[in-house]
Amino acid sequence: MKKIRVGICGLGTVGSGTFNLIGKNANEISRKTGGSVKVVQVGCRRPHPDCDLSTTDTTNDLFAVVNNPDIDVVVELIGGIDTALELVKQALSNKKHVVTANKALIAIHGEDLFKLAMDAGVCLKFEAAIAGGIPIVKAIREGLSGNNIEFLAGIINGTTNFILTEMEAAGNRSFSEVLKEAQDLGYAEADPTFDVEGIDAAHKMTILSSISFGVPLRFDAMYLEGISNITVEDIKYAGELGYKIKHLGITTKTDAGIDLRVHPTLIEKSHMLAQVDGVMNAVLVGSDAAGQTMYYGAGAGAGPTASSVVADIIDVMRDGDSVANLGFDALMDLPMVDISSIESAYYLRLRVLDKPGVLAKITTILSRYKISIESLIQKDAKRGEAPIILVSNIVLEKVMDEAIDAISNLDEVLTDITKIRVASF
Amino acid sequence: MKKIRVGICGLGTVGSGTFNLIGKNANEISRKTGGSVKVVQVGCRRPHPDCDLSTTDTTNDLFAVVNNPDIDVVVELIGGIDTALELVKQALSNKKHVVTANKALIAIHGEDLFKLAMDAGVCLKFEAAIAGGIPIVKAIREGLSGNNIEFLAGIINGTTNFILTEMEAAGNRSFSEVLKEAQDLGYAEADPTFDVEGIDAAHKMTILSSISFGVPLRFDAMYLEGISNITVEDIKYAGELGYKIKHLGITTKTDAGIDLRVHPTLIEKSHMLAQVDGVMNAVLVGSDAAGQTMYYGAGAGAGPTASSVVADIIDVMRDGDSVANLGFDALMDLPMVDISSIESAYYLRLRVLDKPGVLAKITTILSRYKISIESLIQKDAKRGEAPIILVSNIVLEKVMDEAIDAISNLDEVLTDITKIRVASF
Repeated sequence: MKKIRVGICGLGTVGSGTFNLIGKNANEISRKTGGSVKVVQVGCRRPHPDCDLSTTDTTNDLFAVVNNPDIDVVVELIGGIDTALELVKQALSNKKHVVTANKALIAIHGEDLFKLAMDAGVCLKFEAAIAGGIPIVKAIREGLSGNNIEFLAGIINGTTNFILTEMEAAGNRSFSEVLKEAQDLGYAEADPTFDVEGIDAAHKMTILSSISFGVPLRFDAMYLEGISNITVEDIKYAGELGYKIKHLGITTKTDAGIDLRVHPTLIEKSHMLAQVDGVMNAVLVGSDAAGQTMYYGAGAGAGPTASSVVADIIDVMRDGDSVANLGFDALMDLPMVDISSIESAYYLRLRVLDKPGVLAKITTILSRYKISIESLIQKDAKRGEAPIILVSNIVLEKVMDEAIDAISNLDEVLTDITKIRVASF
Repeated sequence: MKKIRVGICGLGTVGSGTFNLIGKNANEISRKTGGSVKVVQVGCRRPHPDCDLSTTDTTNDLFAVVNNPDIDVVVELIGGIDTALELVKQALSNKKHVVTANKALIAIHGEDLFKLAMDAGVCLKFEAAIAGGIPIVKAIREGLSGNNIEFLAGIINGTTNFILTEMEAAGNRSFSEVLKEAQDLGYAEADPTFDVEGIDAAHKMTILSSISFGVPLRFDAMYLEGISNITVEDIKYAGELGYKIKHLGITTKTDAGIDLRVHPTLIEKSHMLAQVDGVMNAVLVGSDAAGQTMYYGAGAGAGPTASSVVADIIDVMRDGDSVANLGFDALMDLPMVDISSIESAYYLRLRVLDKPGVLAKITTILSRYKISIESLIQKDAKRGEAPIILVSNIVLEKVMDEAIDAISNLDEVLTDITKIRVASF
């Protein structure tokens, strides 16, 4: 019977979930694999209250775990970059397989680490880094391996999706009110920047883009926009026009290179991605043979994330290094598409003076830039001002930006114009 | 460079799709795997018009393919049982890996075939047998390998889902009218029995149940109901009560054993499965660590099915026999739960004489069986008759059946009572 000996570094929510899942489902894992997974050592500053460590060797020296000769797989769950990077490097140098849930580490240092892993002939696996319990990395690298991947669009941050869902459901509650609620419920951190400004989603999309297209990890060159500027008004108007606003990661392989971005996006209400509410995650994959497939589930939490960590450990046991670092030795360094060069439909919201002829001036400018209007709402004026909301056809972003500049220069236009991209898949 | 030599048996829609996909994406497959997939021989009665076979060895003797010493993987895509069974047995005996899209073959003869494969030390893979391009077999066996699977619920037959979607969308078109349309569009066979009576879905659910719970393939003992009795009225009333009607495969591991069934089911409109329209497929998986995850995509067609066939071939190339026949050597022969022993909520529709006191008589019978009513519609009477539609709480099926018998015996009840199960996940 094959036996795999695991060392866990970090015993927070995911670490304790992983430790407990390996214990709880030991019989099921044996039945499925004909082998066993044993946690040989746990490295943590303090044990998690939910973990019974009475028969497990523990240490507060994390490097003792990665240097332990009795360990085959190091599970890195401390998060952050600096120490995690050193730990993973050391583990790989010691020819130990590494399983991690650390999206920032992979997004930023992945290439070096995969090179180390390949040189050492071991696996570096990271299913848990993206979309919690959804086996999306496996779906892309193995389930769709016969396909050319064309694009991905994902709701891959539960915090932002929860906030947008609540803002929509609650009608009149602002971003900051709902953020406060999310923090109270434990869905958002005390410092929510990583989530609400899209950095977490950007790390994940960077990794997904790389494994989908076989390109380097270009977190540095991607386009990033959070949700803190989304207003209840925008959600309401989008709804009237038949859309929901979701915070999407989108990456597309185009003739000009890789388009990689995270930003709020209008999606038609009937689209499957528009149904993904609350803290749930989903990734839509467009590929040449399978067409569009979608993967949905909980994007965070002890159980779901541990599910992916344990699946990676079992894969290491089953496959050894046969699918070690799929494709990371054959990266194509394609150019990155600048956001000004993408093509998209756009939602625009502006406030104008309630005077005759304003709409005509705006539509004249749009038509000068060859932008047509797919739908438009002009609301009743209040206090001499009226909102105009429109959705354009698909145009080049820099053309739209020039048109917006020109419209902004009209005396009758009162505020900054809100621009939100509209999904076209 | 690893090279895998493939022989394809059968060059219909899926066979030609597979042949063409291997050719079209040869470079992408090489990039991802560091190896190559080569079709060495094709066995078919007549070549598909879309396939360029000018440089490929063809034969109309299918057994020449499975006996060809230059072939590593036999791809069985002829469908049906008898010849396919002989072909696959012969291929396995010859120690060739087998990839198939044949759900009937696996559902009925899977256990013998897996035993043959294990004895021969080769893989028998069947991702393409279920839900076309959705990598659901991989998700269950690998992506969720650390979990105890609790239940599955799937829309896994595009024909029935198309018909139900169209009956709902079109308002007043009957099952038989929409079936005709489906046949004209190529979504339903000339003899639609296999699809509309649920046999195809039952084959697929049999396989999914077996791999999810590690139990034998019990197609013989499962419960099966098609959609040919679903009326436009039922779809309309279900809609008024907040539900859609979907043809679902459901399998659950219960304390009493394995519950495995295919039947029409009411699902709340807001549920992700209720969004799956037309010929699309989706499988919802409930598991102890990952929670609920869902997998969505095209369930049929040349491209999607070929995508899964090629993924299986690539898996064979990457893994050899390391994940050959996961779990099929450790089946637990759990009892099958009889449909009378399941617990469910129920939708009932009946026609009654428009007389005072009828509803009281019905509700009295229900309360005698301790069945409570979650929602009820009583429509205006026409020609002295009135329809009553209700949804019950969750009760034992045999209790509900006894209550229905008692209600049927009332003089005021005019027709057979329609009973449709309501999803509770």
